[in-house]
Amino acid sequence: MTADMEIICVGNELLIGKTLNTNAQWLAKHTTLLGVNVKRVTVISDDVKEIAAATQEALKRKPKFIIATGGLGPTFDDKTLEGIAKALKRKLEVNPEALNMIEEKYEKYAAKLHTGTLELTQPRIKMATLPQKTQPIRNPIGTAPGVKARIDGTILIVLPGVPKEMEAIFEEAVAPLLRQVSGDKGFHEKSIYADGIMESGLAPLIDTVMQDNPDVYVKSHPKGEENKPHIEIHLSTTAAESENPEKKLQKAAAQLAGLIEKVGGKVFQNESRT
Amino acid sequence: MTADMEIICVGNELLIGKTLNTNAQWLAKHTTLLGVNVKRVTVISDDVKEIAAATQEALKRKPKFIIATGGLGPTFDDKTLEGIAKALKRKLEVNPEALNMIEEKYEKYAAKLHTGTLELTQPRIKMATLPQKTQPIRNPIGTAPGVKARIDGTILIVLPGVPKEMEAIFEEAVAPLLRQVSGDKGFHEKSIYADGIMESGLAPLIDTVMQDNPDVYVKSHPKGEENKPHIEIHLSTTAAESENPEKKLQKAAAQLAGLIEKVGGKVFQNESRT
Repeated sequence: MTADMEIICVGNELLIGKTLNTNAQWLAKHTTLLGVNVKRVTVISDDVKEIAAATQEALKRKPKFIIATGGLGPTFDDKTLEGIAKALKRKLEVNPEALNMIEEKYEKYAAKLHTGTLELTQPRIKMATLPQKTQPIRNPIGTAPGVKARIDGTILIVLPGVPKEMEAIFEEAVAPLLRQVSGDKGFHEKSIYADGIMESGLAPLIDTVMQDNPDVYVKSHPKGEENKPHIEIHLSTTAAESENPEKKLQKAAAQLAGLIEKVGGKVFQNESRT
Repeated sequence: MTADMEIICVGNELLIGKTLNTNAQWLAKHTTLLGVNVKRVTVISDDVKEIAAATQEALKRKPKFIIATGGLGPTFDDKTLEGIAKALKRKLEVNPEALNMIEEKYEKYAAKLHTGTLELTQPRIKMATLPQKTQPIRNPIGTAPGVKARIDGTILIVLPGVPKEMEAIFEEAVAPLLRQVSGDKGFHEKSIYADGIMESGLAPLIDTVMQDNPDVYVKSHPKGEENKPHIEIHLSTTAAESENPEKKLQKAAAQLAGLIEKVGGKVFQNESRT
């Protein structure tokens, strides 16, 4: 059984199209590579009710992991922890461990900036204010700590929205957790490319290959236009090394290539038609 | 009152991090510019149950519009219309108008390819198989038509996942619908940039400006690191031209710039610190 994950991205900038959601792609890719199955991504605004609703809905679906990202900073519109506290029906309180992490950061910044004025103002204390019974996660390169909580069978992780900080916390503290759950399962993929066959002609061939190779998922991605067909065919499987995933992909790809060539199509191993 | 919209993106490739969700950004940006408020983006896999669940959940929140994108093609994994039929508790049936659109496309392709073999196979008929009581929308550049339905107060629109086709149908058939609803309201935005102030120091200044300018939303986006601060401050408002949105943004930006300079920060009109 593969463990499931949901991703929640918080930020008005994503909903007005100002920012491309590279965080969701990064998290999806790194999570998938670790053998965990991303079931859903939800993007919502910096609004306490929206954050609380999305969190509660995700918890009801009982994934093994939920990663929320964005809205952990010091400004008024960083409302993620308030929304999560509402979802969990827990109060917010200053977490001594988180406060300690932030104090250490500000001491370092003050030393670098040669100033003594970086006191713990209200917006700074805000970053140490977590829902009750949650734990801060060290932020190796920024100020706002991540947050971790176990809610029934789900591990809820909250990461900052600044990509570098999100990635650093993920690598240091989240990836090891995922590895623990998914064991030695990993994600394996392979693409082949076909010309001279339309996607509608390819459909029944993919059906055949998926029936013959139940562990392999095959999906076609048209790259040209329907009347000038160039199609990427993506094959993937989630399996342990002991299950020979690469061999399984090879076998399915070879069968599909044979079927495509039989109906007059051309198959390439690379996108550039070589 | 601004009309609300939800976006649903269907595609395993988005959940394994293979594809960056540029469709969501494109739709969010173009929708926002037309004065419609995107409340949520949901990304789910090519799975009938997941598509049905996400559609039903979105309908329950009663947005004015739902745009779903992806999974309209001819292959087995194009399951969006099956999922939506399930959500609406309607049967799928061949839609004569959609079939006509597709037949015309294949006649053109056959003429271009100098072949007579492009008959309407099952995968091609699949693209004309819509939930009952929905209407096809012409696809100006690809084969699979979009789909439109009115469900109580919500207009549900389904677009292909191929970006060019999605954009073409949006421009031709969806944008006019949005304009009709949002009237002359549009989205207006402006960014200024600040150095020499930390985000935590900026927070109370933004609070003041938002209190004094209730129509303007202000959000800070740290671009440097917390100890070497360079912050984009994004101001936005949704308003009709008659409400002088640009003037409102100018006024709020000028007030904020003044407050930042008062505490020793530097303000720039461009990201490159000029």
